[in-house]
Formats: sequence, C-alpha cells, structure tokens
Amino acid sequence: MAKRAKTDDLIERTRVPEDGRGFALAEIDPGAKTGLPDRAAAEVQTMADIARIDELQDVLYAQSKHALLIVLQGTDTSGKDGTIRKVFGPIDPLGLRITGFKAPTPQELAHDFLWRIHQAVPGKGEIGIFNRSHYEDVLVVRVHGLAPKEVIERRYHQINAFEQHLAENGVTLLKFLLHISKDEQKARLEARLADPTKQWKFNPGDLKERALWDDYQAAYQLALTRCSKPHAPWYVIPADRKWYRNALIARIIRHHLERLDLRYPPASGLDGIVIT
Amino acid sequence: MAKRAKTDDLIERTRVPEDGRGFALAEIDPGAKTGLPDRAAAEVQTMADIARIDELQDVLYAQSKHALLIVLQGTDTSGKDGTIRKVFGPIDPLGLRITGFKAPTPQELAHDFLWRIHQAVPGKGEIGIFNRSHYEDVLVVRVHGLAPKEVIERRYHQINAFEQHLAENGVTLLKFLLHISKDEQKARLEARLADPTKQWKFNPGDLKERALWDDYQAAYQLALTRCSKPHAPWYVIPADRKWYRNALIARIIRHHLERLDLRYPPASGLDGIVIT
Repeated sequence: MAKRAKTDDLIERTRVPEDGRGFALAEIDPGAKTGLPDRAAAEVQTMADIARIDELQDVLYAQSKHALLIVLQGTDTSGKDGTIRKVFGPIDPLGLRITGFKAPTPQELAHDFLWRIHQAVPGKGEIGIFNRSHYEDVLVVRVHGLAPKEVIERRYHQINAFEQHLAENGVTLLKFLLHISKDEQKARLEARLADPTKQWKFNPGDLKERALWDDYQAAYQLALTRCSKPHAPWYVIPADRKWYRNALIARIIRHHLERLDLRYPPASGLDGIVIT
Repeated sequence: MAKRAKTDDLIERTRVPEDGRGFALAEIDPGAKTGLPDRAAAEVQTMADIARIDELQDVLYAQSKHALLIVLQGTDTSGKDGTIRKVFGPIDPLGLRITGFKAPTPQELAHDFLWRIHQAVPGKGEIGIFNRSHYEDVLVVRVHGLAPKEVIERRYHQINAFEQHLAENGVTLLKFLLHISKDEQKARLEARLADPTKQWKFNPGDLKERALWDDYQAAYQLALTRCSKPHAPWYVIPADRKWYRNALIARIIRHHLERLDLRYPPASGLDGIVIT
C-alpha cells in the first residue's frame, strides 16, 4: 500500500493542475529525477510497468470498450521517437496505432485543424500514439504567426471541446510534454552531427527553431495552462535523463490503464462446441 | 560463405516458383522443419535476424528510397497475429505500418477491390505489414462466390499488374502463406476455447470456414500459382511449429533487406555548423 500511495503521489506531482493553477513550466527542472533517485531500480520498474502495459493492452483489445490516446509533444531532440522506441517498442504492435504529424499538406490545410487529427484517433481497443499533434496548431503556429492571433486564441477551447468529446466517447487521453533543457538540446544536436548514422536526422532548420526557444517555452506554458483538464491531463516529463523519462511515462500509463477496470469479455455461446 | 549459400538455398526452396511451375501446395508438409532441424539453434538465429532487420529498418527509414511490403495470409489460427508479435514486435514501431483488412465496408465495396489496399501501401522508408490483404478478394470471395466468376478470374492479373506497379516504384513485396494442417487448426481452436483469456477470439463463424478447408486450399493453390512473380514472390511457410515459422520469415526478410544495398544518406551542408 505504501508503495502504491507513493506512486500516485509522484504522478500527481507530474500532472499540470486543472486550468494550470499555479503552474509554471520554467520552475520545472528538466534534469530532475524526483521520486526515482535510483536509476537501476527505476529501470527494473520500467520493464515491469511496460510488461504490465502489454498485458493490459491485450485485455483492452479483447474488451474493445476503451481507447487510449497518448500525445507526445516536445521540442526537437526532446525524445519523442526514443520514447516510442523504448516505452512502446516492447508492446504488441497489433494493438498500437502510431501517427506522426508533420507540417500539414495543402489538402489538410483546406480543412479545420482537427480534421486530420480526428481521423487518427484510436478506435476502441486500440492504443494510439500521436508523435506531435493538434497542439502544433497552438505551438509552431503561434511562434511563427502562421494564423491570425484571434484564430489561434479560439483553438484552445476548440481543443478542450474536442478532447472532452473524445473522453465522453471512451477515449482516455494522456498528454506528455517531454521537457528538456536548452543545454541538453545542444548536446543532443552535437551528438547527431558527430554520428554518421544520425546526421540524416539533422535539419539545419532545427537551429532556427532553437533560436526561438523562449517563444516556444511561452507557447507551451500557455497551452498546458489552458488545456490541462481532468479528462485530458497534461504531464510535464523531465526528459534530460532518458531513463527517468521512460520510467515516468510507463508508470503513468500503467496507472491509468489499471484504473479502467479492464477485463476479458465473458464467453457466451461456446458451450457444447465440438471441433471436428 | 558456406552458411550464406545454405541460407539462400532454404529461401529458394520456400519460394513458389514463377507462375507456380510444378507447385503443389498439398505436397508441402505444414509440420516441416526443413533446413532448421535444431529448434534452439534456430531460435538464436531468429533473434539475430530480427536484430539485424531492426538495424536495417533504421537505414531504410533514413534513406527513404525503398519500401518493404509484407503480406501475411493464412487460415484462421494460422499465426498471422503471432508472427506480427514475435517477428515484428522487437522492431522499432516507428518504422512499421500495420494494416489489418477485414470484411470491406460499404464505402470500400463502392470502389474497386484494390482501392483500400493502395491507401495502405507503405511509403518510402517504411515497412508495411498487411494482416490479410487484396488476396482475400480471390480467396474468401472465391470460396463463397461473393463475386461473379469472371470478375474473380480477372483479379489475378489485376493483382499482378498492381504489384508490378508497386515494385517498379520502389516497393519490395514479400508474400507469406502461413501453412498449417487441419489437425493443427483443431488443436489451436480447442486451446482458444479452453482459455478464458482467449475465448473472445473464438468466432463460431470460424467453424463454417473450417468446413470449407479443401475449397480454401484449392483457392490458395490457384492464387499462389498465378501470382508468384520475381518482383512479388510468394513463400509457403510451414507453420505448425511457431518457432520454425518465425525463423523462416525473419530469415527471408533479412535476406531481402540485405540485398537492397541500404545505406545512410551522405551528410551535406553540415560542415562548420556550430550550435549556440
């Protein structure tokens, strides 16, 4: 019991309060290892949490009553791909639906910004992972002024309404901001430049985004403040340490899956069946 | 060198000859362990092959020049889901695109049978896995007479033309029939019935399909004969033994990926970049 209570407390402290009351992104240390001081122990627990998520995913799929939607946001090199590889890699790929959102196509731009998002929402029984998401429409779009200010202002409550609609229809939403420091990004970009098997990931345009670091932090602060709701919470994941990032995300997902009261559907009509 | 030659020979013997010359599905033993007599050794090799596929997938993605499309066909319980879990489970989920094809929707039926298939073809850099495929349109549709006979007859060459089009546009196609015996299906259906965590997979309709076993075998024979081409070969995988199935599929995929001459794209424009 003590262990479980402690877990919940850590998750609670990671969650952005409803409507961002008292929330200040700038006060969260990207290098933190709050609640998990021992790396080796955390890694063992992460593996156990992932194994449990894999088990629960099978029940989720069998029951086909709930869907889980995980949103990953974060600046370049914050570890979105790495999270997918490390946390979701060991999970049965049949139950996962991963969607990466890049700059919208002309066809997508001809629709409202949630049009392409809605199409990618996981169905009942599925775990959906958004690698970037509709939040780009209040992040990159805001930082670069790609839409009129009043249009962007309306999007926060449009997002809230959309997410509430999903939640009312059986989708559990968990949103993770992978929070790294500017120094850590520098180190990761330099590592990318130095490794011939990673240079292809380096996009000189990333440096332009890096120059807008403070603007992005302000846009995150606003989005997380306005769009953290009980039915669709934001979690800020200190992500300078990859093992900590993985541990915290796995723990939070396991926690929420366990609260769904998943169970295999009862058998019916199977009595007396003989296979010849 | 000897080892490599032996590998190729096993793959060659698994492949359906072009246009099915001399091919008789009924002569292939679903319980075979041809070329891999030692299970423990085969399992070690399978893990090595999967690890190599995972490495090559990263290069495939980086280079974004080729796509790999894997088609899985087989009767109920033949192990399509299990193959995805065991062979593709350990691979980075970011590079995989898995599509399951069920009975077509009214919207899908309003289009030609390749319409929904084309939409799911992997893009350059991706590995696509079809869990069932356009072959259902010459399998279940043929067995149940769901389309006029002359329509079905035309589909074989339509499939060949479509697959050639994909091959000419950078898609490597590998098609696997998971070949199990009728006795093995009985054992697997009985195991499903006996396990409360698997009963939900049991569909009484599966027994109706089982009663049509011979008709399905005849439809497979025809499809594999007419649609095994150098640019889109069919492989018949003896699949009563799951470890053998996994070993053979991993080996074949590795073999073809290694022949693609994948390489990380050369860096350009990165000289002198300083991250501040």
